[in-house]
Amino acid sequence: MIKVVYPGTFDPITKGHEDVVHRAAGLFGEVVVAVAASRVNTLFNLEERVAMAREVFANQPKVRVEGFDGLLMSFVQAQNSRVVLRGLRAVSDFEYEFQLAGMNRNLYPEMETLFLTPAEKYTFISATMVREVARFGGDVSKFVSPNVVEKLQQKFIKKL
Amino acid sequence: MIKVVYPGTFDPITKGHEDVVHRAAGLFGEVVVAVAASRVNTLFNLEERVAMAREVFANQPKVRVEGFDGLLMSFVQAQNSRVVLRGLRAVSDFEYEFQLAGMNRNLYPEMETLFLTPAEKYTFISATMVREVARFGGDVSKFVSPNVVEKLQQKFIKKL
Amino acid sequence: MIKVVYPGTFDPITKGHEDVVHRAAGLFGEVVVAVAASRVNTLFNLEERVAMAREVFANQPKVRVEGFDGLLMSFVQAQNSRVVLRGLRAVSDFEYEFQLAGMNRNLYPEMETLFLTPAEKYTFISATMVREVARFGGDVSKFVSPNVVEKLQQKFIKKL
Amino acid sequence: MIKVVYPGTFDPITKGHEDVVHRAAGLFGEVVVAVAASRVNTLFNLEERVAMAREVFANQPKVRVEGFDGLLMSFVQAQNSRVVLRGLRAVSDFEYEFQLAGMNRNLYPEMETLFLTPAEKYTFISATMVREVARFGGDVSKFVSPNVVEKLQQKFIKKL
Amino acid sequence: MIKVVYPGTFDPITKGHEDVVHRAAGLFGEVVVAVAASRVNTLFNLEERVAMAREVFANQPKVRVEGFDGLLMSFVQAQNSRVVLRGLRAVSDFEYEFQLAGMNRNLYPEMETLFLTPAEKYTFISATMVREVARFGGDVSKFVSPNVVEKLQQKFIKKL
Amino acid sequence: MIKVVYPGTFDPITKGHEDVVHRAAGLFGEVVVAVAASRVNTLFNLEERVAMAREVFANQPKVRVEGFDGLLMSFVQAQNSRVVLRGLRAVSDFEYEFQLAGMNRNLYPEMETLFLTPAEKYTFISATMVREVARFGGDVSKFVSPNVVEKLQQKFIKKL
Repeated sequence: MIKVVYPGTFDPITKGHEDVVHRAAGLFGEVVVAVAASRVNTLFNLEERVAMAREVFANQPKVRVEGFDGLLMSFVQAQNSRVVLRGLRAVSDFEYEFQLAGMNRNLYPEMETLFLTPAEKYTFISATMVREVARFGGDVSKFVSPNVVEKLQQKFIKKL
Repeated sequence: MIKVVYPGTFDPITKGHEDVVHRAAGLFGEVVVAVAASRVNTLFNLEERVAMAREVFANQPKVRVEGFDGLLMSFVQAQNSRVVLRGLRAVSDFEYEFQLAGMNRNLYPEMETLFLTPAEKYTFISATMVREVARFGGDVSKFVSPNVVEKLQQKFIKKL
Repeated sequence: MIKVVYPGTFDPITKGHEDVVHRAAGLFGEVVVAVAASRVNTLFNLEERVAMAREVFANQPKVRVEGFDGLLMSFVQAQNSRVVLRGLRAVSDFEYEFQLAGMNRNLYPEMETLFLTPAEKYTFISATMVREVARFGGDVSKFVSPNVVEKLQQKFIKKL
Repeated sequence: MIKVVYPGTFDPITKGHEDVVHRAAGLFGEVVVAVAASRVNTLFNLEERVAMAREVFANQPKVRVEGFDGLLMSFVQAQNSRVVLRGLRAVSDFEYEFQLAGMNRNLYPEMETLFLTPAEKYTFISATMVREVARFGGDVSKFVSPNVVEKLQQKFIKKL
Repeated sequence: MIKVVYPGTFDPITKGHEDVVHRAAGLFGEVVVAVAASRVNTLFNLEERVAMAREVFANQPKVRVEGFDGLLMSFVQAQNSRVVLRGLRAVSDFEYEFQLAGMNRNLYPEMETLFLTPAEKYTFISATMVREVARFGGDVSKFVSPNVVEKLQQKFIKKL
Repeated sequence: MIKVVYPGTFDPITKGHEDVVHRAAGLFGEVVVAVAASRVNTLFNLEERVAMAREVFANQPKVRVEGFDGLLMSFVQAQNSRVVLRGLRAVSDFEYEFQLAGMNRNLYPEMETLFLTPAEKYTFISATMVREVARFGGDVSKFVSPNVVEKLQQKFIKKL
């Protein structure tokens, strides 16, 4: 049984992320969605980002959501895994991922990074643009799950 | 008659932007240069950026400059347009624009995004580099119009 | 009224091409689909490629299909147009198109090239892969119109 | 147990390919190296390419080498697999693979494509360049296994 | 004194190539333009390509034009050089050059590859497009030197 | 004798940077490592970054390290040089460098920008990722020199 760790900021989790997780859950024994604490400002704090992702995957027995701080690879080892899963949407993703995979491979030769591409209908979704559209009251229900739509609305109403 | 909206931060407007607008004005009935309010720090505030662009296109009857805040697509609709115009210079532009066009198409299926490339002699000009060169007293008169040169000089003299 | 010329090899025309043409027909006065004679081997000859495209757009009064040999820009002028339309799907498309637009702009300064991106569900379709799948009897009905499916079947049955 | 199919032309198999296969064999239950018949001219014919790859992986119990003609996905199904493995080295790889994965996903929704990156010391190796260097008597022993070095020498001596 | 070798097919030599050579001649002690024999079909044969390049640089004492067959690096060594010069215009150039430089560095650790970018007004020129335009009688005098214009005209008149 | 200026933020200097400098020192008469004052937050201040780089190249008679503030090209002129050296690792590097080289060429036509690629084993190293790994106590001794390892440790212990 292969256990994979799918790390990200998930600020918030989008249908593109969900698609990658569902595909991975269909292939592997367990998918750990690893929500990274972030030193740059996020719209949602770590607890909120973990909570939203947990709601999204509540009915997926093979998916577990955890927050983490520190080095990704230490977290992966602590999970008794040696496989990192990453989604690729665009060339710029690819270059960054390639550098990250190279650096991790040097630090932890036993670790592997596997890549999946989301379905083409999700390739244009980015969490940054979701936040931008929601900020101005645009409809983001095609890009994120209903619980995330609600949290975005609360966030931006509170901010007004 | 096709009315196109050309959005951007224009901090400040460069000869590359001007080239795209002139080409568009030669093709379409009206070009609305839409200067976006920005939540990240800009060198010039929205009023200054709108004013500079208006000076640049003062003698172009088919070009109108407006500031806007909020969702681009709401602004486009308020202008009775359904065509967004974007300039493409580099691969990284292309990827970002592709995501943006995809997201807008999902939110507003009746909207279209058209792309133009600036003349090759302008492909290397970026507003970021113009600000950088001007900050240290470099000569930017090849990259921006005379009124923008002047505003950059005032800005950086004031800051000293 | 703006008349645009949409050139390509169309070996065969795909639903990605159709999407670009339909979007363009919604914006512009006339779209001329310009099927290029090719010096490299094509699966379908020029007459077949023109005929397939004409069937696809038979009910589109604003779309006209023509074959051409020689310089694209001479054909565009002969059509009393000065706008070339191109579809962009990927970074490699972008670079090639950028070179082509630059060269054409130098030869014919009055010509403009406009770019559209196809809907994301068509971004992965390439005529090359359609031919490849059809060659081995795969189902290409999601990627090309029914008349093209039929022509592909005839071509590969004949070849067996 | 996950069985993955790693397709390619392997004309000839390089140390970059070997690295991907070894990594995959460390993760998955079985790796089927699928050597594609090719309609374009190859240096080695299908039998030679299969034979070289079999020699390379002779001591790898989890690796099997097979030739195939026709649609990749039919071959994958015939192998009772639903996972295609691909190596990514460069941006141009990425774009092609992205299109291929999109097309396959539409034809066979149950199929998944996973990507691995080779170790950075192999990223610059391409079979095309290996053939080019060998053709002129250059030393390719850093790029391919000894049995492949020998076959390349025989091929080019024969051709002289 | 640094002697650099600038290799290519030069089918034919363009003003973009000339720009790279002139810049290099301004920096280095000697520039050897190395015209490669090619196994794919070229429009001009090796003698013609060497002759055209020699005419172009006839008045440049620091530039020498030589044809070569075989491994580039053997030629570079035979010239008592250890520096290869390459021009970069586009991302796809970059990736190919990166692979080539990596492979050469493994074969010949003492060799270096230096890159220059041509002036932006030449970035869109490719020899392939020059041949294409000339084939149909288009004006290529902005892209190649007068002697090359003439040779292109003779070639295509002869072919008619 | 060619004197080249190799500018960067060097926050901190990595083995990738060192590789570029060593290659350049093997080719050119003098390499000036130009450490840029930065308006964005750096981990190390300008004095620290200059000091670390000086330690790294202490035994390299052809390498000199200097800090600079203001326009790069003014610094290059003040050094009596007219050649800027840049390292290229990835496509995104390439695009940025291309714009920068274009802008500099317009401002200072006599200046040239030369590019080198680091050895492939260093292509994945970025100063950003080095800081990230060190921040969480990861081992960065494969990516930076011993003196830089020590400074990173002091910095992050101080910060705790």
